[in-house]
Amino acid sequence: MEVTRTGADVLFVLLGAIMVLAMHAGFAFLEVGTVRKKNQVNALVKILTDFAVSTLVYFFVGYGVAYGISFLHPAADLVGKTEGSAFAANGYDLVKFFFLATFAAAIPAIISGGIAERAKFWPQLIATSILVGLVYPITEGMVWGTRLGFQETITALFGVPFHDFAGSVVVHALGGWVALGAVLMLGARRGRYRKDGRVIAIPPSNIPFLALGSWVLCVGWFGFNVMSAQAIDGISGLVAMNSLLAMVGGIISSLIVGRNDPGFVHNGALAGLVAVCAGSDVMHPVGALVTGGLAGALFVWAFEMCQDKWKIDDVLGVWSLHGLCGAMGGIACGIFGLETLGGLGGVHPGAQFVGTLTGVVLGLASGLAVYGSLRATMGIRLSDEDEFMGADLAIHQIGAYPEDATSVHDDGALAARASARGMGAA
Amino acid sequence: MEVTRTGADVLFVLLGAIMVLAMHAGFAFLEVGTVRKKNQVNALVKILTDFAVSTLVYFFVGYGVAYGISFLHPAADLVGKTEGSAFAANGYDLVKFFFLATFAAAIPAIISGGIAERAKFWPQLIATSILVGLVYPITEGMVWGTRLGFQETITALFGVPFHDFAGSVVVHALGGWVALGAVLMLGARRGRYRKDGRVIAIPPSNIPFLALGSWVLCVGWFGFNVMSAQAIDGISGLVAMNSLLAMVGGIISSLIVGRNDPGFVHNGALAGLVAVCAGSDVMHPVGALVTGGLAGALFVWAFEMCQDKWKIDDVLGVWSLHGLCGAMGGIACGIFGLETLGGLGGVHPGAQFVGTLTGVVLGLASGLAVYGSLRATMGIRLSDEDEFMGADLAIHQIGAYPEDATSVHDDGALAARASARGMGAA
Amino acid sequence: MEVTRTGADVLFVLLGAIMVLAMHAGFAFLEVGTVRKKNQVNALVKILTDFAVSTLVYFFVGYGVAYGISFLHPAADLVGKTEGSAFAANGYDLVKFFFLATFAAAIPAIISGGIAERAKFWPQLIATSILVGLVYPITEGMVWGTRLGFQETITALFGVPFHDFAGSVVVHALGGWVALGAVLMLGARRGRYRKDGRVIAIPPSNIPFLALGSWVLCVGWFGFNVMSAQAIDGISGLVAMNSLLAMVGGIISSLIVGRNDPGFVHNGALAGLVAVCAGSDVMHPVGALVTGGLAGALFVWAFEMCQDKWKIDDVLGVWSLHGLCGAMGGIACGIFGLETLGGLGGVHPGAQFVGTLTGVVLGLASGLAVYGSLRATMGIRLSDEDEFMGADLAIHQIGAYPEDATSVHDDGALAARASARGMGAA
Repeated sequence: MEVTRTGADVLFVLLGAIMVLAMHAGFAFLEVGTVRKKNQVNALVKILTDFAVSTLVYFFVGYGVAYGISFLHPAADLVGKTEGSAFAANGYDLVKFFFLATFAAAIPAIISGGIAERAKFWPQLIATSILVGLVYPITEGMVWGTRLGFQETITALFGVPFHDFAGSVVVHALGGWVALGAVLMLGARRGRYRKDGRVIAIPPSNIPFLALGSWVLCVGWFGFNVMSAQAIDGISGLVAMNSLLAMVGGIISSLIVGRNDPGFVHNGALAGLVAVCAGSDVMHPVGALVTGGLAGALFVWAFEMCQDKWKIDDVLGVWSLHGLCGAMGGIACGIFGLETLGGLGGVHPGAQFVGTLTGVVLGLASGLAVYGSLRATMGIRLSDEDEFMGADLAIHQIGAYPEDATSVHDDGALAARASARGMGAA
Repeated sequence: MEVTRTGADVLFVLLGAIMVLAMHAGFAFLEVGTVRKKNQVNALVKILTDFAVSTLVYFFVGYGVAYGISFLHPAADLVGKTEGSAFAANGYDLVKFFFLATFAAAIPAIISGGIAERAKFWPQLIATSILVGLVYPITEGMVWGTRLGFQETITALFGVPFHDFAGSVVVHALGGWVALGAVLMLGARRGRYRKDGRVIAIPPSNIPFLALGSWVLCVGWFGFNVMSAQAIDGISGLVAMNSLLAMVGGIISSLIVGRNDPGFVHNGALAGLVAVCAGSDVMHPVGALVTGGLAGALFVWAFEMCQDKWKIDDVLGVWSLHGLCGAMGGIACGIFGLETLGGLGGVHPGAQFVGTLTGVVLGLASGLAVYGSLRATMGIRLSDEDEFMGADLAIHQIGAYPEDATSVHDDGALAARASARGMGAA
Repeated sequence: MEVTRTGADVLFVLLGAIMVLAMHAGFAFLEVGTVRKKNQVNALVKILTDFAVSTLVYFFVGYGVAYGISFLHPAADLVGKTEGSAFAANGYDLVKFFFLATFAAAIPAIISGGIAERAKFWPQLIATSILVGLVYPITEGMVWGTRLGFQETITALFGVPFHDFAGSVVVHALGGWVALGAVLMLGARRGRYRKDGRVIAIPPSNIPFLALGSWVLCVGWFGFNVMSAQAIDGISGLVAMNSLLAMVGGIISSLIVGRNDPGFVHNGALAGLVAVCAGSDVMHPVGALVTGGLAGALFVWAFEMCQDKWKIDDVLGVWSLHGLCGAMGGIACGIFGLETLGGLGGVHPGAQFVGTLTGVVLGLASGLAVYGSLRATMGIRLSDEDEFMGADLAIHQIGAYPEDATSVHDDGALAARASARGMGAA
C-alpha cells in the first residue's frame, strides 16, 4: 500500500473482480442444472444471498481478520486524497477488497453445491458468516498475509514459502473440505441410499443450465487466475496459457474417463482449472496440461466413488472437484513448478505438501465444527416433508416455472401456494 | 476532445461499452423469465431490435442533439489522423459514442419490461426513435452536456451542479417514468384486474431465466458505473466498492422484506445498483450499503402496491425499480455524498432534489405524450385475440419452444402456423 | 517479438482471448437452441470438446505451421526471463497464442452447427484435428503470416496486400465453406426432404437458448475484432464503432427481410458482425452499417434458399452465415474501405476478391477432402436408429433433461438408459 498505484492497476484488479463476480452466476447455474427442478429456485437464491452475506461479513470483519485493514474511514481517506492516508490513489485498495471478496464468497458457493436439495436456508447463512468472517480470512491471512507466522515457518523449514498463487488450496481445497464436513453432518438426500444397499440415481434436471454454469465459471476463471497478480506489471501470459491448457487437459481426460458424459466433461474443465490455480504462474504449459488432465480423471473417479461406493451424497461433487483437485493442485505446483520440469522454480514439494495438508485439515475440521454445532443447536436439515416438496416451495413459496405450475390442473395446490405472494403474485 | 487520449483510455471506455452492451442481454432474459411463455420470443426480439433502432437513431440524430457532434466525417477524421480533426486519436470519440449509445438504448429496454405482453411491435419502435432521438438526448445534454443552461442554473442556485455520475436519474429515473406513462396509456393485461375488484395473479414463466437476466445486469453494471469516469486516470475503486455494497444492500433488504421470493431478491440487487449510480463516486461505502438497502425495500413495497392496490400493471416493475429507485438514488447522492456522512462532498441536497424532479417530470410527461399520441393515431395495443394468443405467435409467427408446439398434438394449429416460415421452417 | 511488450499489451490481448473464449459458449447455445431437444447435449459436448482438441492440436502443431513458433521451451524462456529468449516479457507471446487459439477453435465450432443432429462424434474430432492442425494454420499463415509468399504475390499484383483485419475470410469464410463440404458429404437429416419433393420443417427447440447464444457471440465479438490489433497502441475505436453499426445493420435488415422471425434477427446480428471483420479497421461507420445490412439480408435469403430450394441441410445456416457473409465481407472491405467512400484506404478491390476467392476455394476443397475421406474410411454419420433416438442418448447416454425423462412413465426405457451411468447416475 505504500507504493503509488496507477489507474491501470485499478482497472486490472477491477476486471478480475468483475470476472470472479460473474463466476458466482456460474456456480448458480451449475447447481440449477444439477439439482431437481423443485430445488432450482433455492439454488439461485442461495448463491445470490450467500454472495451478499459473504461480502457484508468480509467487509466488516473478515478483511480485517486477514489483513488488518478496516474501511471505516472517510471516503477521502479511502481513495488516498487526504494527507497521510494509508490507502493508495484511485481507490486501488477498494478494488483489491472487491477482488478478494469475490474469492471469499466462493467458499459458501462451493459448499452450496454439496448440501443442495435438503439444507435449511437461514442456518446456511449463519455458517456462511462464520466461514467468511473467520475461517477463510484466517487461512487467507496465513498464506497470503502474515498471520500466525505460517509462511515464516514454512520458509524456515523448506527455504521457500508455500506457493498458492490463485488459491487451489486457500479457496478450493478449503471450500471443498469444509463442504465434505457439511455433507457428512447433513446426511444423504431422502431415498438416495436404500436400506437394502441399493443406490437410487437422482438425475440432474437440466444439462444446458449445467453447461451454462460451467462456461461462465471457465471464462471467469481467467480473471480469478491472471488478476491474482494484483498489479498490471506482474501480469503473466504464462498464467493464462497454463489455465487454458489445464482446462483443456481436464476436458479431454474427463471426456475419456467419464465416457462422454456431459456432466463429467463440463465439470472436468473446472477440475483442471481448480488444480492449476496454485501453480499457474510457475508451471510449464505442458505441466499445466498434465495437471489438468490428472484432475479431470481424479474428479470423475472420486465422484463415482463418493456417490456409489462411499455413499457420500455430495450433490455436485464439490468435494471431489474443489477439495480433491484443489489439494492435488497444491501438490502439483511443487512438482511441475520445478525448474527441472520446465517450470520457473521457487517452489518446494515439501512446502506444498505441508501447506496443502494445512488447508485440508483446517477445512475439514471447520466444516465438521461449524455444521456440527449448527446441527446440534438449530438444525441444518429440512423436514422430510419439505425435502419431498422441494426447497423451492418449502423455503421460497414458489417453483422455478410458476406458469407451468398454474396451468397444469392437478398441480393446483402447489400453484395456489406459489401464487399467493411474491413476484409470482404479480 | 482537446486532450490527447491514450490507448488505455480507449480500452477503458470500450470495456464499459461492451459490459453495458451485455446488460441488454440481461434486460432480455429478465423479461423472458418474468413474462408468460407465449410472450418470450417477443421479449427477445423487442430488446434486440430496440437496441438496433436506438443505436441507429442515436448515431444519426440523438448524439448531435446531446453534444452537437456528428460522425458524418471521413474515417481519417474520426480517428484523428487528419490535420485539424476535432476527434481524438485512436478513435476515442467513437468508443465514447458506443458507451453512451448503450446507455441511450437502456431507455427502451427499461420500458419494454413495463409494457410487456400486450404492446404492438412497430409503434414501440417509433416510440423508441422519438425517445432516443430527442427526449433522452435533451435530458442527457442538460445534465452531462451544456444544453439549455441547466447545470449553470443549478450551480447558480446551489453552488454546485446536479450530480448524476452514472445516471440514476438521467437513465433510470427517466426511463422508469417514461415507462409509467406508457403503462398508463396502455392499460393492464387482459384478465389482470377483474371488474369485481379481484386481482388475478399472472405468474412468471421461468425463474432461472429471470435470474440469468439479473446476473448479467449485475455484472455489466460495474462497467456502467466505473467506466462512467470515461478516462482511466479518473477510475475510482470507490465507484466499484459502492456499487458492490449497494447491490449487497439491495439483495439483503429485498430478501427480508420480500420474504425470500426469488423475483424480489434478484430484482433487489438491481434496485441497489439503480440507486447507487448517481452518487457512487462520492458516497462512503457504508452510505452506499444503506442506499442499496433502502432501494431494495422500496422496490418490494412499490411493486406490491402497484400490482395489488394501485392496479398499475407494470409487468416487470420497471417504474418501481428504475423510476422510484432511480429518483431515490438521485436524492440519496445529495445526502450520503456529504462530507459529514463520510462522503467526498461537492454535492447539495437541493441541487439533487431539483435535478431529480426535473428528470421525473421530463420522463412522465414524455411518456404520456409519446405513448398518448401513438395510441391516438396508430394504436399501441395488441387486439384482444392477439394478446390471448400471445405476442410470439401474433407478431413473430413462432413460439419460444417450436419443437414442443409441433410435438403436442392438440397444439397442431399453432404448430402449423409456427412452422410455416422463418427459421422455424428450417 | 523483438519489441518489448508492456503489461498493457498483455492485458489487451488477454481480454480479447477471454472474450473469444466466451464466444464458444455462444456457439454452443446457438446450436442448443436450434437443434431438437434430443441433440442438445451433443451440441454442448461437441463445442467444448472441439475447443479442447483444437487448442491442443494448435499448441503442438498448428501454431508452428502458421508462424513457425514452438512453445516447447522452458517456462523462463517463454516469459522472456532468460538471456536471448525469443519471447517477449510478461508472456505476451503466450496470450497471443491464447487469442489465436480461440480463433482456430472457431473453425470446428462453425462446422458443428452445419452437421448437427446426425454426425458421429469421434470422426468429427479427427476432422477438427486436421482442420486446426493444418488447413486453418496454412490459411492463417498465408494471410496473417508469411507462408507461401501469398501476401507478397497479392502485393505484387495489386500494390497492397489482401486485407482481412479480424478474419471475415480467414476464420468465417474458411469455416463456412469447409462446413458446406461437410454438409454435402454428410447428407440431410432423416425425413428432412421427402422423396415426393416435400420439405419437412424441423423446428428449433428453444428460442431463448438460441438468443442467449447470439448475445454471447455478439458481446464477445468486440474482443474478436478490436483485440485483433494485438497491441494497445493500435487500438481503434473505429473497429468498435464499425462492429457496432454492422451488427445493427444486420439486425434491422434481417428483421425486415426475415419478417420478424426471432431466429433470423438473432442470426442477422451475427451476419453483420461476420461481414465487418475484414474491414472493420478501414471502413467508414456508414459503410459498416451498409455492409452489415447487406449481410443480414444475404443470410436470410441464402438460408431460405438452402433449406427450401437447394435442399442443403445446413442446420444452423453456417454456410450462409459464415461462408457467404464472410466472403461478402472480404469483398466489401475492398469497397467501403476506399477513401472515396469515406474509408481509411490502403485496400484494393482486386486484392480483396483474389484473397476472398482463395479462402473460399481452400475451405470448400478442404471440407470435401477431409469429410469425404472420413466418410470413405470410418463413416461420419450416425446410424438411422441412433439419429432417430437422438445424438444425446446415442453418444452420451443421457438426454438434456434427465429428470423429466425419468418422471414421465412412458419414457421409462430412455430413462433407464440415461440413468445407468455418468453424472446422471448420481
